[in-house]
Amino acid sequence: MSIQLERTYEPLTELNVIEVIRELNYFLLEQENELVVNEIGDGNLNLVFHIEHPATKRALIVKQALPYAKVVGESWPLTLDRARIESEALLTEAESVPHLVPKVFKTDRTLAVTVMEDLSDHTILRKALIEGSTYPKLAEDIGTFSASTAFYSSDFHLHPFEKKEQVAKFTNPELCKITEDLVFTDPFFDHDTNDFPEELIDSVEKLWNDEELLRNAAQLKYSFLTRAEVLLHGDLHTGSIFITENSTKVIDPEFAFYGPAGFDLGHFFANLALNHLSQNAHAKEPFNRESLQNYLLETISNTWDTFENTFSDLWHEKAAGPFSKTNGVLKDFLQQTFQDSIGFAGCEIIRRTIGLAHVADLDSIENKEVQLYYKKKALELGSKLIKKRSSFTTITQLTDTIRGA
Amino acid sequence: MSIQLERTYEPLTELNVIEVIRELNYFLLEQENELVVNEIGDGNLNLVFHIEHPATKRALIVKQALPYAKVVGESWPLTLDRARIESEALLTEAESVPHLVPKVFKTDRTLAVTVMEDLSDHTILRKALIEGSTYPKLAEDIGTFSASTAFYSSDFHLHPFEKKEQVAKFTNPELCKITEDLVFTDPFFDHDTNDFPEELIDSVEKLWNDEELLRNAAQLKYSFLTRAEVLLHGDLHTGSIFITENSTKVIDPEFAFYGPAGFDLGHFFANLALNHLSQNAHAKEPFNRESLQNYLLETISNTWDTFENTFSDLWHEKAAGPFSKTNGVLKDFLQQTFQDSIGFAGCEIIRRTIGLAHVADLDSIENKEVQLYYKKKALELGSKLIKKRSSFTTITQLTDTIRGA
Repeated sequence: MSIQLERTYEPLTELNVIEVIRELNYFLLEQENELVVNEIGDGNLNLVFHIEHPATKRALIVKQALPYAKVVGESWPLTLDRARIESEALLTEAESVPHLVPKVFKTDRTLAVTVMEDLSDHTILRKALIEGSTYPKLAEDIGTFSASTAFYSSDFHLHPFEKKEQVAKFTNPELCKITEDLVFTDPFFDHDTNDFPEELIDSVEKLWNDEELLRNAAQLKYSFLTRAEVLLHGDLHTGSIFITENSTKVIDPEFAFYGPAGFDLGHFFANLALNHLSQNAHAKEPFNRESLQNYLLETISNTWDTFENTFSDLWHEKAAGPFSKTNGVLKDFLQQTFQDSIGFAGCEIIRRTIGLAHVADLDSIENKEVQLYYKKKALELGSKLIKKRSSFTTITQLTDTIRGA
Repeated sequence: MSIQLERTYEPLTELNVIEVIRELNYFLLEQENELVVNEIGDGNLNLVFHIEHPATKRALIVKQALPYAKVVGESWPLTLDRARIESEALLTEAESVPHLVPKVFKTDRTLAVTVMEDLSDHTILRKALIEGSTYPKLAEDIGTFSASTAFYSSDFHLHPFEKKEQVAKFTNPELCKITEDLVFTDPFFDHDTNDFPEELIDSVEKLWNDEELLRNAAQLKYSFLTRAEVLLHGDLHTGSIFITENSTKVIDPEFAFYGPAGFDLGHFFANLALNHLSQNAHAKEPFNRESLQNYLLETISNTWDTFENTFSDLWHEKAAGPFSKTNGVLKDFLQQTFQDSIGFAGCEIIRRTIGLAHVADLDSIENKEVQLYYKKKALELGSKLIKKRSSFTTITQLTDTIRGA
């Protein structure tokens, strides 16, 4: 007779984390004593253990969700189910774009653990962009990532039974609620989660009193709540992208859910637009600034073009059902997705400027006057994108609007 | 020691159905031998037992799903889960409009059984309308039913966690697939489920070759597949409504699911429009015809007005979240719902004319020439509603279009 111990969740430590990876035989048993373990997470949401065998340079990441979130000193309970969502999303994405996501070696639901590829040789894109780096493959990789994950998870490809199963699997109420509040609601009202310097109050009150803006933001929020079109990353900002000259990896899809197809693209565009604005302050000399800003706008433009081309190719090759041969159906989807992405970009720009979670691109501008100036510009840009999204028909209109902001 | 027998599904019979209701104590134990049991279903999808105590006139209905569907001689497997969906929908509807649905006394998931109120004193609305009956409360009741079930199941009322739970509960892949195919796809293509007389082929081919129509039908199908807005009945035609002078009961919600808020209204409008067309042949004399047709158009008009007013009242009284105070948000929802309902009505009109499942309103027109004439008119009307739905802004435009068909 054997006694089956009930396994329960407990946070791992640098001392016992190796037990989780032993069965993978990723490291030789005789190397185990030589492994170096470091917890490298920021401690707000997850534990992240980096486990390396220094002599061979082989390494693994063990990511474990914590049962709470810490933001600006406060702590609130947060579902461990997000670890399941994250690893399911990584595995689903890997079916169509394995080269654009970290490889998952193991998941453990009880421990809320995902064991995955080490990407220490990559840099967080946001940091790299602030420092003025450029990556020629970024646009193609993110356009491909968005188009492929969208197409393969959509009703254009999946049998409706399978689509509905996927929607159920990626139902993510707690993390979606964070987006509902922090992206789509709080920044548009005088809410205590908002965070902005006093000097911005006139600009912020202008937003709060703009009925047309609020009405359009409500439409976008309603789309986020109701339109289960494709599997989304759910938080595709430049801090969710790991990059090198030759490799792009989209990480941390714990916000993954089924939503409107323009959502991820909008967040990516917004974060590039915020960096574009901030380069007016960051870039060391005019020539360098112009070149960086052109790169950012070209990245937006090429990302959309890649999305459109990749999605269209997949459609023509693989879309199911007789309507896939009907003129205009693909075009309608692409136009809706494009205009949605512009509106979602506007919401992201506003919330990253006055909401709870800021971006370093703007906040790290050292001169406070200059920082305020570009934050005001960001609010105007976000508001315009939300209200005018339906008048945008080409990507050049978007990049021109960002350039003119 | 007691042996627990595993209960399994098996079709009930007139001999054993009483065992299912015994625990309800609806009938006295000493009445049991006096009960009269009749199976009154049509045998295509469900068994329906009417159990009556003749002396007291007390009666109950036991409805049991069969594990298959029979349509025009063919039989295919169909999930028993639809019995769960049906009773869950009836119970959810009863929370806001208990007077408009049959009362549920018991459900049994293993047996796929719902025990409910007997409505033998009611008439099926379709039959009554074909015979020229009118019901003054119909519009108010259906408008109230649609508005209340929509509002209380929507993101405007429910906490997002609860909304997402409800969406999961009413995920109904198999029955939705029937609608996807038979309403939104097959009638628009040369598919073998279609059913129409040879003489209609020119009109039908005109539809099949109308790229604008197909493109718009694809948009409506995509809305049906992706927009999880409110809990819908899913099959709200005039055969799903039981009626008397003083009572309206919406029955048979086995197609219930979360979808676009205009869907049920569209189906109801479509079936009244089909009856309106058919009264040109059915009504015995011109005066009677005019009066009947006016009643049908007024019912459409008053149903929409009741929907709009009831939903607006609930919104102003109970809508949650700060955007509920923003001008235009309610208006946007109502306009989208209105225009969607017109498009969905168009799809229902077309599929009821040339698809697999017809309506008696048109098919019972005895003169074949006359029947063909009105079927052609129905196809033209359906096509117009689908293509022009976005140009409709008042309910009078819809009733005028139906009158002119």
